[in-house]
Amino acid sequence: MTNLWSSMAQRAEPYIPGEQLNKENIIKLNTNENPYPPSPKVIEAISKEVGKDLRLYPSPTMEDLRCSIARYYGLETENVFIGNGSDEVLAFSFMAFFEPGKQILFPNITYSFYPVYAKLFHIPYKEVPLNSDFTVNVENFFHSDGGVIFPNPNAPTSIYLPLEYVEKIVQNNREKVVIIDEAYIDFAPESAVKLVNQYDNLLVIQTMSKSRALAGLRVGFALGNEQLIQALIRMKDSFNSYPIDRLAMAGAKAAIEDQAYFKETTEKILTTRTWVTKQLEALGFKVLPSSTNFVFASHPEMAAEKIYEELREKDMLIRYFGKEPIDNFVRITIGTRKEMEQFIETVGEIVG
Amino acid sequence: MTNLWSSMAQRAEPYIPGEQLNKENIIKLNTNENPYPPSPKVIEAISKEVGKDLRLYPSPTMEDLRCSIARYYGLETENVFIGNGSDEVLAFSFMAFFEPGKQILFPNITYSFYPVYAKLFHIPYKEVPLNSDFTVNVENFFHSDGGVIFPNPNAPTSIYLPLEYVEKIVQNNREKVVIIDEAYIDFAPESAVKLVNQYDNLLVIQTMSKSRALAGLRVGFALGNEQLIQALIRMKDSFNSYPIDRLAMAGAKAAIEDQAYFKETTEKILTTRTWVTKQLEALGFKVLPSSTNFVFASHPEMAAEKIYEELREKDMLIRYFGKEPIDNFVRITIGTRKEMEQFIETVGEIVG
Repeated sequence: MTNLWSSMAQRAEPYIPGEQLNKENIIKLNTNENPYPPSPKVIEAISKEVGKDLRLYPSPTMEDLRCSIARYYGLETENVFIGNGSDEVLAFSFMAFFEPGKQILFPNITYSFYPVYAKLFHIPYKEVPLNSDFTVNVENFFHSDGGVIFPNPNAPTSIYLPLEYVEKIVQNNREKVVIIDEAYIDFAPESAVKLVNQYDNLLVIQTMSKSRALAGLRVGFALGNEQLIQALIRMKDSFNSYPIDRLAMAGAKAAIEDQAYFKETTEKILTTRTWVTKQLEALGFKVLPSSTNFVFASHPEMAAEKIYEELREKDMLIRYFGKEPIDNFVRITIGTRKEMEQFIETVGEIVG
Repeated sequence: MTNLWSSMAQRAEPYIPGEQLNKENIIKLNTNENPYPPSPKVIEAISKEVGKDLRLYPSPTMEDLRCSIARYYGLETENVFIGNGSDEVLAFSFMAFFEPGKQILFPNITYSFYPVYAKLFHIPYKEVPLNSDFTVNVENFFHSDGGVIFPNPNAPTSIYLPLEYVEKIVQNNREKVVIIDEAYIDFAPESAVKLVNQYDNLLVIQTMSKSRALAGLRVGFALGNEQLIQALIRMKDSFNSYPIDRLAMAGAKAAIEDQAYFKETTEKILTTRTWVTKQLEALGFKVLPSSTNFVFASHPEMAAEKIYEELREKDMLIRYFGKEPIDNFVRITIGTRKEMEQFIETVGEIVG
């Protein structure tokens, strides 16, 4: 009955998210979730909000949460846009800043949702090849026709591009919007947020799903010049007036305001990442230098797909992308120290 | 800096939602929220879900909630799509079923988000005039070029179109999708859901924001043939994998399963609606026959805008649309009996 589908529905090539198995006792290292629970202050704030006011619409302008995020980054409320996870923010950004007929640029190895948005909205794109060590040659991103988008740190490679290079890309695309997708930035040296007041063509997108342990709550945000934020608000208000519910709004506000808990859990993950990297190297893995809450690794003697499958049989989920040139790599989320000890033991038996 | 905006951002004409004042002691009758709190079972279900699992992504397929909604309506899970409020479901429906270059039809007095979606996605539309008493001449909706969408009951007129006429519109558009936006159907005689298994071109959209008292939670859904639902899923998965968070999912499931509470609160609203209508008529108002949780009324001796403004000064919010031919009407949400007694007293002083 596809003759009832629009051409947009027919041309869509949907994104496939990582598995969400509902199985007990699984070690889930496949979707880069935080192994620690959200801050107790988040739980408290949400619990307070669960009540009769759920009958009322949330604030469509979300001033309160925008103000908290702005304050955290030393920006103004007008510099903040909030969406239903960073995926929705990305979708609105493709709509607001990229144009059918004008080619945009993103890396050939990157978040696989970008080509999905581009195809949906008829935006031509070029997948710019990375260097063979998966680093970026920044000049390849200069003078784009329609704009630039890339994650920093990149996913799934985990590699961070230092801010001075990010800035060069922004400087060499002044007539187009450059979007830095910073889903994993809290595990990396430095955010591009500090450049937002300097460049009116820079949009930085972040999420509460990783470092704030709120994947289940669906809150992402964009930081940029007021004119860019206005365009995103126009997209939201032409699509869905209230994408963030009352509970998510309350939880996200508490999360951004609890810096101590955030710092503590993030540091634990960084410590475990260092430990996991060493252990994997000791087992013969090649591990890319990670600035994220996951590592991207390959083994010289065993195919990545086989490692993935054998772990799966032992109730350990990691992510495998069966796609060149990363088809011999696996992506492993950093769990708790205890989970990672079990993981290292099991993977050691598999490759040993 | 609009030269950084896409043509889509430039042509958008965003929807303007009703005011959400954060003022105490206001009587808020302007956004058709339910005056009663959500079911205690909803509060219980959400409270149980507020915890460490918020670190994990929600289910992207939402099987569990889809199954509950399907069961409630005697359908299959495959017949149910869930979105972030019915507004998001509507947006995905415009994307999935309507086509640039093919004119769609909707009434000239209707939910004002429809032209917003149409402009955003470049879908031409014809605003079909209603009869002078705001009823529908169904033949005007036959043989559309690109599809049909209308609310039933209509908003803001509150008038219900009997199911036999809805069916005629569906029958006379078999090559195109007919969308019935049933945001207010629980306050009306009969849903078109019972026709879903009979017509593969019928999509019914409902929301938890009105009769289920969950405007603050953002859950809407569509019911239709599996092929239509598949198209909506493709749109969602090309836009945002997880638009419904864990808490909203748990709350919505409890809401649809608590039929007793739903019936009790809905009946209270219907009783109050009858009372309010009589009182307004006694004050000289003309009140359209309502099948919704609001009434649409005009007064022969006082301009609607003046009534709206005077009520506003007395901390009572109703909705006024300054637009012909409804510029002498006000839309009044049915609140609790106590709120409506206060309202009737105040409006009596204004028009008296």
